[in-house]
Amino acid sequence: MKLLIKNGNVVTASDRYTGDIFVADGKIAMIGHDLPVTADRTIDAKGRLVVPGGIDAHTHLDMPFGGTTSVDDFLTGTRAAAFGGTTCIVDFAIQNHGGSLRQAWDTWMDKARGKAVIDYGFHMIMREFNDSLSREMKDMVSEGVTSFKLFMAYPGVFLQDDGAIFRAMQRSGEVGATICMHAENGLVIDELVKQALAKGNTAPKYHALTRPPRLEAEATYRAICLAEVADVPVYIVHLSAAEALEQVTLARDRGLPVFAETCPQYLFLSVEDYDEPNFGGAKYVMSPPLRERAGQEKLWRGLKGNDLQAVSTDHCPFCMNGDYGKVLGKDDFSKIPNGAPGIENRMSLIYDGGVAEGRIDVNRWVEICSTSPAKIFGLFPRKGTIAPGSDADLVVFNPDVSRVISAKTHHMNVDYNSYEGRTVRGVSEIVISRGEIVVENDAFHGADGRGEYVKRAPRD
Amino acid sequence: MKLLIKNGNVVTASDRYTGDIFVADGKIAMIGHDLPVTADRTIDAKGRLVVPGGIDAHTHLDMPFGGTTSVDDFLTGTRAAAFGGTTCIVDFAIQNHGGSLRQAWDTWMDKARGKAVIDYGFHMIMREFNDSLSREMKDMVSEGVTSFKLFMAYPGVFLQDDGAIFRAMQRSGEVGATICMHAENGLVIDELVKQALAKGNTAPKYHALTRPPRLEAEATYRAICLAEVADVPVYIVHLSAAEALEQVTLARDRGLPVFAETCPQYLFLSVEDYDEPNFGGAKYVMSPPLRERAGQEKLWRGLKGNDLQAVSTDHCPFCMNGDYGKVLGKDDFSKIPNGAPGIENRMSLIYDGGVAEGRIDVNRWVEICSTSPAKIFGLFPRKGTIAPGSDADLVVFNPDVSRVISAKTHHMNVDYNSYEGRTVRGVSEIVISRGEIVVENDAFHGADGRGEYVKRAPRD
Amino acid sequence: MKLLIKNGNVVTASDRYTGDIFVADGKIAMIGHDLPVTADRTIDAKGRLVVPGGIDAHTHLDMPFGGTTSVDDFLTGTRAAAFGGTTCIVDFAIQNHGGSLRQAWDTWMDKARGKAVIDYGFHMIMREFNDSLSREMKDMVSEGVTSFKLFMAYPGVFLQDDGAIFRAMQRSGEVGATICMHAENGLVIDELVKQALAKGNTAPKYHALTRPPRLEAEATYRAICLAEVADVPVYIVHLSAAEALEQVTLARDRGLPVFAETCPQYLFLSVEDYDEPNFGGAKYVMSPPLRERAGQEKLWRGLKGNDLQAVSTDHCPFCMNGDYGKVLGKDDFSKIPNGAPGIENRMSLIYDGGVAEGRIDVNRWVEICSTSPAKIFGLFPRKGTIAPGSDADLVVFNPDVSRVISAKTHHMNVDYNSYEGRTVRGVSEIVISRGEIVVENDAFHGADGRGEYVKRAPRD
Amino acid sequence: MKLLIKNGNVVTASDRYTGDIFVADGKIAMIGHDLPVTADRTIDAKGRLVVPGGIDAHTHLDMPFGGTTSVDDFLTGTRAAAFGGTTCIVDFAIQNHGGSLRQAWDTWMDKARGKAVIDYGFHMIMREFNDSLSREMKDMVSEGVTSFKLFMAYPGVFLQDDGAIFRAMQRSGEVGATICMHAENGLVIDELVKQALAKGNTAPKYHALTRPPRLEAEATYRAICLAEVADVPVYIVHLSAAEALEQVTLARDRGLPVFAETCPQYLFLSVEDYDEPNFGGAKYVMSPPLRERAGQEKLWRGLKGNDLQAVSTDHCPFCMNGDYGKVLGKDDFSKIPNGAPGIENRMSLIYDGGVAEGRIDVNRWVEICSTSPAKIFGLFPRKGTIAPGSDADLVVFNPDVSRVISAKTHHMNVDYNSYEGRTVRGVSEIVISRGEIVVENDAFHGADGRGEYVKRAPRD
Repeated sequence: MKLLIKNGNVVTASDRYTGDIFVADGKIAMIGHDLPVTADRTIDAKGRLVVPGGIDAHTHLDMPFGGTTSVDDFLTGTRAAAFGGTTCIVDFAIQNHGGSLRQAWDTWMDKARGKAVIDYGFHMIMREFNDSLSREMKDMVSEGVTSFKLFMAYPGVFLQDDGAIFRAMQRSGEVGATICMHAENGLVIDELVKQALAKGNTAPKYHALTRPPRLEAEATYRAICLAEVADVPVYIVHLSAAEALEQVTLARDRGLPVFAETCPQYLFLSVEDYDEPNFGGAKYVMSPPLRERAGQEKLWRGLKGNDLQAVSTDHCPFCMNGDYGKVLGKDDFSKIPNGAPGIENRMSLIYDGGVAEGRIDVNRWVEICSTSPAKIFGLFPRKGTIAPGSDADLVVFNPDVSRVISAKTHHMNVDYNSYEGRTVRGVSEIVISRGEIVVENDAFHGADGRGEYVKRAPRD
Repeated sequence: MKLLIKNGNVVTASDRYTGDIFVADGKIAMIGHDLPVTADRTIDAKGRLVVPGGIDAHTHLDMPFGGTTSVDDFLTGTRAAAFGGTTCIVDFAIQNHGGSLRQAWDTWMDKARGKAVIDYGFHMIMREFNDSLSREMKDMVSEGVTSFKLFMAYPGVFLQDDGAIFRAMQRSGEVGATICMHAENGLVIDELVKQALAKGNTAPKYHALTRPPRLEAEATYRAICLAEVADVPVYIVHLSAAEALEQVTLARDRGLPVFAETCPQYLFLSVEDYDEPNFGGAKYVMSPPLRERAGQEKLWRGLKGNDLQAVSTDHCPFCMNGDYGKVLGKDDFSKIPNGAPGIENRMSLIYDGGVAEGRIDVNRWVEICSTSPAKIFGLFPRKGTIAPGSDADLVVFNPDVSRVISAKTHHMNVDYNSYEGRTVRGVSEIVISRGEIVVENDAFHGADGRGEYVKRAPRD
Repeated sequence: MKLLIKNGNVVTASDRYTGDIFVADGKIAMIGHDLPVTADRTIDAKGRLVVPGGIDAHTHLDMPFGGTTSVDDFLTGTRAAAFGGTTCIVDFAIQNHGGSLRQAWDTWMDKARGKAVIDYGFHMIMREFNDSLSREMKDMVSEGVTSFKLFMAYPGVFLQDDGAIFRAMQRSGEVGATICMHAENGLVIDELVKQALAKGNTAPKYHALTRPPRLEAEATYRAICLAEVADVPVYIVHLSAAEALEQVTLARDRGLPVFAETCPQYLFLSVEDYDEPNFGGAKYVMSPPLRERAGQEKLWRGLKGNDLQAVSTDHCPFCMNGDYGKVLGKDDFSKIPNGAPGIENRMSLIYDGGVAEGRIDVNRWVEICSTSPAKIFGLFPRKGTIAPGSDADLVVFNPDVSRVISAKTHHMNVDYNSYEGRTVRGVSEIVISRGEIVVENDAFHGADGRGEYVKRAPRD
Repeated sequence: MKLLIKNGNVVTASDRYTGDIFVADGKIAMIGHDLPVTADRTIDAKGRLVVPGGIDAHTHLDMPFGGTTSVDDFLTGTRAAAFGGTTCIVDFAIQNHGGSLRQAWDTWMDKARGKAVIDYGFHMIMREFNDSLSREMKDMVSEGVTSFKLFMAYPGVFLQDDGAIFRAMQRSGEVGATICMHAENGLVIDELVKQALAKGNTAPKYHALTRPPRLEAEATYRAICLAEVADVPVYIVHLSAAEALEQVTLARDRGLPVFAETCPQYLFLSVEDYDEPNFGGAKYVMSPPLRERAGQEKLWRGLKGNDLQAVSTDHCPFCMNGDYGKVLGKDDFSKIPNGAPGIENRMSLIYDGGVAEGRIDVNRWVEICSTSPAKIFGLFPRKGTIAPGSDADLVVFNPDVSRVISAKTHHMNVDYNSYEGRTVRGVSEIVISRGEIVVENDAFHGADGRGEYVKRAPRD
């Protein structure tokens, strides 16, 4: 299948030009004007942006959590991603206490196989660190799992103490991997949660009130310090608080290899949403929680100025209705499954709030949604750009049409949308994965399981 | 006993004037010129500074530590203090795992009784936090123990996790007490120590190399954040690293009630001293360790600008010779008893390096050596100033003579002095405790056990 | 006249005790309990604070300004000051273009002589710098004029360029004087003013809109840098903007000898006051202008943490009614006489907003209203404290009564009060100047011209 | 002429891939693998980097300065640039006092015409600002002069006061132009120079000692503040001091559109070079001067982290020998012609110190040497990248060979090289300007005057 995309306004992290792209064997073969080629299919992209497919470096599909499971599996989740212009995800395999990394990886490879419709990789969540797991980290890197996620939150579930975190960081440095860090001080949060519940404060909003931003800033600085002493890079996941961003900014001003992502929810939603009546605030129960509105412009400033390098979704959907969803925490906010959907809406939301609002330019939009996560996580240059030899993961994006976000029309397998009713400018009209058109005319055209596992490269 | 001190250059934290001080019943009764009084003893203080007696808010007398005990008890230690112009100390009672605060307090009251020759109070070290101890905190406050010390270092010995620290902070706020924090990330340090020993790096200097300054900065910021969320003041003990000071400065710039002390060793000694041959570096094994020389001016800057409020000694002496001293760590730096002497040298060292060198003025010298610790720890206005009604704890200080510091002549019960051979300008010639001359003509004149326990006041 | 003040709650910058003060020959002679003295007059100060008289280091009495003159002369102005608990002012003599410093000093000494009822000193405003004036600076210092004020604002009137400012700073260093700086970028402000007027924006609020806070921050940093290169201290007058305070804080964090005062108007009033109808906004036309309310807490934070050392009034009153007052700028905000009254209200306002509101303690109130300006400007220890030998400038202050501020009852010679209708806690009931009761029972008891010129000391 | 460059390691600011580039009509026509094209000339770039031609945004060719003239004209200067891999420069036309911008532009267009061998544009230096010049600024923008340079230094020659600077900034905002700022406080520097000369301090090193880094930081912050109030971007030229970089970093952390370049001399040379004997220090007399070595890593940190966006040369050569060169200042450092050569050495120096030393990656090297200046100054996407439609300004760069820099072999028309004897890794082997090979085999192949004037675009 040879594909020619003509006359598009091609945008990469750095460039912007009108031109044609010729795709052969699933890869970018040629770029230019008036290409002397013959194609099986020609798309006229006049008036459209042609951009690298989005990369969502933080998703939780089919993830067990506190007796329930996130409701998008690798089929529904990746299909929704594709509809939204995302052509590659990095999900999280989870090592169990006492279990091996290999077991975790096998489990998640099984979850994805036969289902995923776009390409995918895995980070590895480690619940503990010991010599055996240390050895396995090297094996995992050779399997293409080149990032390990650690938690400073969720004591008894995911949290590791600073000694273990430090050793895992050192090992990560040895094997060329990157540490992803959930930076909240979980031990203190647990005390605040207990105290809130003891006072009868059980509503969803107490989820936010028991996770103050200063505790995210604290853990962020701690992660930075430990990484500095271990002499390795660190990547802060789902940074939500301006106070935490300040720590990242200070670290980067000192020249440290510190990276961070934020998520659309922290850019568009705020702590006031927890007041939504009828337990509606439960929709937004995720960790870290939504923050004060005043911080949003600071996050945008971070995205513009490269103190934040990426926008991921932390997609982890649970339904509002039904026995195993958010209702589990009806009488106790701490039992509400943590997480919210978003995998489908990222590219349009960031285009709308970023480019259309004049906060960032279109190159930076591509960079934070695709190129930077590709570079940070070893997918580049296979993914994340439009250049000869790269995978033909492409989006024909129409910046001139608007769409209203709604659970009624979205493709995620969840009964609400955090952005219900919001109009966004910019729509992913045609989505191409390795040269194959998978979304066109609002329909999905790819086969179940067509997505491929991507072995990610270690750091240089 | 009525005492008249005439013609002195009286210096408090704020004032400086020539005048007479009349002492009756152990208290300052009158200040002025040509006082119409009759005294039992008149001291002519012409050409001398008359200052409030020094307060050393951080000492460890008769302290058990890893199978040995600090070699100054409350007799030798307080006598040495008095020789150096210090008339009040705050030592540390230590709660045992499973033990009560009351037991600890009783134990330390017994240690001091019949021995201490100057007044003393106690901070309470807590190794754990639970409901019973929480209740006892209030009792202790009513006994005059209005500060509790917690550790972020020494896992398995003193370290408490952030949850326990946070709860103790909250409780401290409720009972009007102040938290003293040993701010070093002990879990990471322990990993570094293990790694160093595994590589055969056993010499004293590895004590410093396994406790990098960034881990002090990390813990300092963490302590600040936890205190901010708990909405209570925090006092960082023995701050040694410029990186940690930076965190204190930033916190104070934000208006937070964050306080810190440093110690003479961090102002005058440096990491190079660990290279002293023949295991001599062991003299300086204390925690935090000595730091790079370049940071010293920053500490002085902090003292001048009130980002550091106090200079204490952390006096905790172990001998170089003998079976139970520093030699315990001859083959393993981690076994060297942590601590160094200094209770006797503080006032002169700070006068010399501070006032005589032009880094601070004489009022500030009084403030950091006496007034501020008195105010922070609930001793003021009984101690820490020269004002009607205050205890007549006074020092007649000669700024114009110099003395050479030496173990040969010092009064501490330890076989070395960290400042051996250093000449300091300024000598405490006459030392008065509650109106009684205890040091004069280089001799001690007070009775064993004359010192009194001081009930310290809670915060307002 | 011998005066005994009994049982007062004596407060200095550092101390607080109950005691008696005996005054003889206009000076503090004795302090203590049960003083064995005989007095001509005894005041029972039970339940009152007894504090050092206030020092207002920034006033403009009888000052010519753009064709008019500030309406308080040295009689009405100092009398109003005394009613408010201020017993010493430092006013500004103004050198004329081409004139000498001696001429300026003589002129202002004449203005004060026979009128001032409290003690006074002078700063010297220099409109230019040259070799002759440089020589005179030394003469002025020997006359007790130990501070020189320069302007970065008011081009054509007061502004000097950076070269002249720098040379004056260097000279100030040589002669032991302190530079006071009006820090706003006047050249840029003049452009903004011209542009506003050209657009027909003539209302009082444009005074604020044409003097943005960033231009104060800019000039503040510039003043700091020039002083750093010249290696001399600098004192920023009437700091109003949080952005400027940030520069002072950063400089002090670097250890530089940078000082700053703010004024009550910047702590209590805000930019919204310019919207007062019927030209009422003109009351608040002063430079720098009132700022956003959000910055006020930052100024209080600065006062608490000693990044701001003093509160002065910049008292410079012009009437709202009458031909030579604010009305001059009815059709052109730039012609409104710059300045506002306040000399009488400072001590109570700061007590109320500071101490009574819990933002600062009572010692700090004394320090920023009296002790610090005394120390910075060479009046200490003669003024600014309660200590043997100091002038008996004292205030018996009742913290438990409230008073409503109003132009109807104030003693300033101006037809409005910026704080009209505001209730303040804390009243200066008895005011004593060099041992003489000048205010008691709401009446003034001193003779015209009883105030004395105070020769101020140079820096050490 | 059709050109095919095969198998190169193509590097842009964002991408890196192995591929072929086909050039037709002087532009990039096609990029890819196995391009189905026929070329007049094929270059095998195997093992070579193929990068966008360098852009030097700061040169002074044929520039009159204090009675002499920089010794490279547009022929020798641009030829040397081409040898070094630079294919486009932006030089400075200079408005004369009382003269028009049009006159200046005509003069410099004449200087370049018939001589320049690579493409060129002009910034416009303005010595004054008035209504007439304001109108002309718009004309200049339509001629492609979309940046105006102002000076805070050189009083009487280039310096404008803050009012004029501010108005020019505002006007720049209106016409879509960018302000380039020489940020040093020239008025204070002039005082320091006079004082040095008065003391007989005439040697070259006093050039540096009279231009302290704090005065660059001051002017940098001032430029930032004025631009912030004027609401326009500002670009700081030849930033040299870490203290000034700190201001740029803080401004960018606040999200302001502040940009800055540094130059190779500030990255590789230091203040110690002024001690070169026999008046050798004069080689390095330029403004700002060389700085302390300790600041160099901070500049590299700024380049890596994008607080510095570009490296330009400020090429402005004067000979050491001969009557009109550096010798003019033999007895008075202030008369030494300010400036140094460097146009030829930039690309290799930055590759060597940056990429080869591991401080930045190869993409960032391309970005700071070509792409960023192109974007900032309106040359992009015509220049600064390798993308369809862009000018075929390309360099075939061999990273694996080293060369020794020497005046004996360089092509600049000046008798010394600041980097004499330094070995640099990385050589521009083939240099292509608009599809024409101008440098190959160490020889120049282009015709005199083949360079074209480039109209630069205004900001969006």
